[in-house]
Amino acid sequence: MKDLRIEHQEELTGISEAVVRERGSKLQAYTGQLQDVIQKSDWQSDEASLLLPDTDTTLVQAMVAKKKTPNLKYIVVIGIGGSNLGAYAVYQALYGSEDAFVVDRFPKLVFADTVSTTLLHRLAEILQQVQLPEEILIVLISKSGTTTETVSNADILFEPLLVRFGATFIERIVVITDEGSKLHTLSQEKHIDTLFVPAKVGGRFSVFSPIGLFPLGMAGVDIKALLSGAKAVRDAFLAAEDVLENKSLVSAVLQKLWQEKGYTIHNSFFFNPELEMVGKWYRQLTGESLGKSHDRQGSLVNAGITPMVSIGSTDLHSMVQLYFGGPRDKFTSFVFAPNAESPRVSSNGLLSGLVMGIEGKSADDILQAIYEAVKISYRQHELPYMEVSLPEISAFTLGQYLQFRMLEMMYLAQLFNVNAFDQPNVEDYKSEMRKALNSSKASE
Amino acid sequence: MKDLRIEHQEELTGISEAVVRERGSKLQAYTGQLQDVIQKSDWQSDEASLLLPDTDTTLVQAMVAKKKTPNLKYIVVIGIGGSNLGAYAVYQALYGSEDAFVVDRFPKLVFADTVSTTLLHRLAEILQQVQLPEEILIVLISKSGTTTETVSNADILFEPLLVRFGATFIERIVVITDEGSKLHTLSQEKHIDTLFVPAKVGGRFSVFSPIGLFPLGMAGVDIKALLSGAKAVRDAFLAAEDVLENKSLVSAVLQKLWQEKGYTIHNSFFFNPELEMVGKWYRQLTGESLGKSHDRQGSLVNAGITPMVSIGSTDLHSMVQLYFGGPRDKFTSFVFAPNAESPRVSSNGLLSGLVMGIEGKSADDILQAIYEAVKISYRQHELPYMEVSLPEISAFTLGQYLQFRMLEMMYLAQLFNVNAFDQPNVEDYKSEMRKALNSSKASE
Repeated sequence: MKDLRIEHQEELTGISEAVVRERGSKLQAYTGQLQDVIQKSDWQSDEASLLLPDTDTTLVQAMVAKKKTPNLKYIVVIGIGGSNLGAYAVYQALYGSEDAFVVDRFPKLVFADTVSTTLLHRLAEILQQVQLPEEILIVLISKSGTTTETVSNADILFEPLLVRFGATFIERIVVITDEGSKLHTLSQEKHIDTLFVPAKVGGRFSVFSPIGLFPLGMAGVDIKALLSGAKAVRDAFLAAEDVLENKSLVSAVLQKLWQEKGYTIHNSFFFNPELEMVGKWYRQLTGESLGKSHDRQGSLVNAGITPMVSIGSTDLHSMVQLYFGGPRDKFTSFVFAPNAESPRVSSNGLLSGLVMGIEGKSADDILQAIYEAVKISYRQHELPYMEVSLPEISAFTLGQYLQFRMLEMMYLAQLFNVNAFDQPNVEDYKSEMRKALNSSKASE
Repeated sequence: MKDLRIEHQEELTGISEAVVRERGSKLQAYTGQLQDVIQKSDWQSDEASLLLPDTDTTLVQAMVAKKKTPNLKYIVVIGIGGSNLGAYAVYQALYGSEDAFVVDRFPKLVFADTVSTTLLHRLAEILQQVQLPEEILIVLISKSGTTTETVSNADILFEPLLVRFGATFIERIVVITDEGSKLHTLSQEKHIDTLFVPAKVGGRFSVFSPIGLFPLGMAGVDIKALLSGAKAVRDAFLAAEDVLENKSLVSAVLQKLWQEKGYTIHNSFFFNPELEMVGKWYRQLTGESLGKSHDRQGSLVNAGITPMVSIGSTDLHSMVQLYFGGPRDKFTSFVFAPNAESPRVSSNGLLSGLVMGIEGKSADDILQAIYEAVKISYRQHELPYMEVSLPEISAFTLGQYLQFRMLEMMYLAQLFNVNAFDQPNVEDYKSEMRKALNSSKASE
C-alpha cells in the first residue's frame, strides 16, 4: 500500500461524519463539473490544471535529454512564486535542504527568486566554480514573461556567463513561459529553447506543467511517478461514490466549518523537516486562492484562511506553547512520512543514561513517539486536527499530496464563494512598483 | 549613523501618538523595574537576560581560542529551540542561507535540531568528509541537559566519530548547559569542556549568553559588536525620557492595541531573505512568551499573538493577495536593510527591453522600489504597519534588533498580564512523550 492516508474521524476533528456529509453533498455538483473538465479535456476551463496528470511528457523529456550533460553540476531555476515553489517543494522533499553540503551528488538545483544581493553574490560564487558551459543549465521561468525579479536576476546572472562562454551559453538556457509572451518572442529571436505553460494553468496550480516537470526532470526526479501519484488521487477522489472518500472535499469542508467557528488559521504541521517547502508551496496555494476581498457576486467579504507552516519536532520547542495555551484559532493538518533507514541511538554511547527510553531506538522511532505524544496532547486540549500519512516520501506520494491540496483548494473556493484562480490585488503593488522603477534613478 | 530606526507614525500604524503615549505611560513602572534589574545586577530576576550585554566574554573567548584550529571546517551545533535559534539567526543573517555552497569559506556552522533521519544522513555525509578531529567541533547545547532530540542526535553523530578518532574526539566537543545539570555532571566525568548558561536566562532570551556567543564566536562573528548593539538599544530605550523614544515599549503598545481590534497575527515581513531565521527566532520569542492559557492571577485567558514570517519580494508572489484581500487580522512589521555592493542589471543584456525601468539599476535599487511600492499599497488598503530599518546587516545592528525584540516582549507580557518567562504547556506533550518512549520498543 503506497497511497497517502487521510484521517478525519470526529475524535480528531471535532466534527461528525454526518455534518461533513451534509455540507459535502452540496459540493457534489462541482465534483460533476470537475469530472466534465477531465472528460472533455477542457483546457479552456479555470480548472485546466486537473488535466496535467494525463499530459504527454514527451516534449519535456526530450528537452531534458537534450540539455542533460554528463558533467552537469548546477541547474539554476530563476523564477518566483508559482514559477519555482512547486519544483522547489518536490526537490527539497526528495533531496533534503542540506543537499548543498553533499559534495558528490550532482546535478543540484539552486533557486533564484527575489532580487536579493546576498543571494546573487552566492550564486555568482557558485557559477564561478563552473569551468564549462555544459556544467550548468539555466531555467528561466515566467508565465507572463515580464516578472521584474526574474528578468532582473537573469540579466545579472547571465552577464558574466556570456562574457566567459559567448554564444554557446545560449544553449544552456531553457525558457518556460506562456506561448506568445514577450519572453517567447525574444527567445525565438535569440534562439533560446522554450517550453510552454498551458494558458489557463496559473502559477500556483502549475507544478505538474513544464514549470515543475522540466527542472525536476533535469534533477533526476521521476516525473512520471509524480504525475501517476497526482492522477491516482484525482481519479480516486473525484470518482468516490461516498463523499467521505473524496478527501480533498472532506478537508475543504472541515477547514471551512472550523473557519466559521473562528479557527481562521490553517497550520500545516510537518513531522519531516524536508517538507517545509511543500508547506510554503501550500501557503501560496491557500493565500492566493482564498484571500479575496470580494466574492463572486462582488460583495465585500475579505475571505480567506491564513496558512502557516510548522515543523515537528522543531516547533514543539518554539510554537507549541502558543498552540496549546494561546488563542483557539488554528485548525491543524499533521503530515508525517516514516523513513526506512534511520540511524540508531547506541546503548553504550558517550551520553548514555541522560534520557530514558531512547537507547536502541532509531531517530525515526523517537520522532514517531514525539508525534504520537503531540497528537494525544492535541486531543487533551480539544484542538482540532486532521492527519495525512505518506507511506514514504517519493515522487509518487508527493504527486498525491500536491494534487490532494490543489483539488481541496478548488472546493474551498466554492465554499467561500470566491474565484480560486485569480489574484486581483497582486496588481496593487505592481502598478506602484512600475511607477517607482520608472521614476527612480539608479544608485551611484 | 549605524543605529536601527523604527518608524511608527500614525499615518502608518493608524494609531495616534497620544494614544500610544497614554497606554505606554502605564508601563513606565515596569521600565523602572527593568532599570533596577540592571543597576543591581540582579541575576535572580526573571529579566536577567537584560544583564547579558554587559557580561564579560573572557570565558567564551578563551574557549573559542582553545577550540579554534587552522583547519576547522564544520562546527555542528546540536540543540533545538532556544538552544539554536539565536545563533542560527545571526549566522544566517551574516553569511546567508546559501553559505553551504560557498566552497572556500570555513568554518561553517551546521545545525542539528530535530531527530530527522534525512538531516542525520546529510550530517553523517558532511562528517565523513572530515579527515582529522581538529577539522570539526561539536557544540552540544541543552539548558536542562536532558533534551530528547539533542541527546539522541548527539549520540547518533558521535558514534562514528568516536570509532574513527577515539578519545581525542572528546576534545572536539563543547557542552553548554545549566550548572549542575545531569549533562554538566556527565561532562565533568568524561572531561568534556563546558560553558554555562545563567540559571534564570531562558532559551528564548539566551542569544547573548554562551548559547549564542560561543558558536557565533567560533564562526568568526564579532560577538563584542553583537553585545554592543544590544547594550546600545537597551540603554537608550530604558533611559528614554519620552516614552515614544522607547521603541520596544512603543512596538509592544501598538501590537497590543491592534490585537484588541482583532489583529491577532503579527507578520514580520523581511525584505532581506537572509533574515528569515531572525523571523523564526522571533516566532519562538512571541509564541512562548505570550501564548498563555492563564494570566498572572490564574484566570483562563488564552492570550497570545500568532507570529508569522514573510519574505519580500518572495511572498509578494505568494501571500500578498491574502494580506490585501483577505481577513483584516494582521499587524505588520517591515524590516529592511540595504546592501552596499549590489550587482547591476546591464543596459544591453540578453533580455533587455522585457521589463521597463530596471536597466542600470542594482538588485538593491529594484528591491527598494518594490518595498516602497508595497508600503504605498499597505497605506492604500489601510493595513497597519511599523517599519524597522537597519542601516546594514552587521553583528552590531543584529544585536540591536534582537535586544529590541526581547525587550518588546517583556512589555507585551505586561500588557497581556501573563508571565513572559515560563512555558507551562510544553510539558503537556513531553510527559506523553516520555510515556511513549519508555513503553515503546525499538523498530526492527
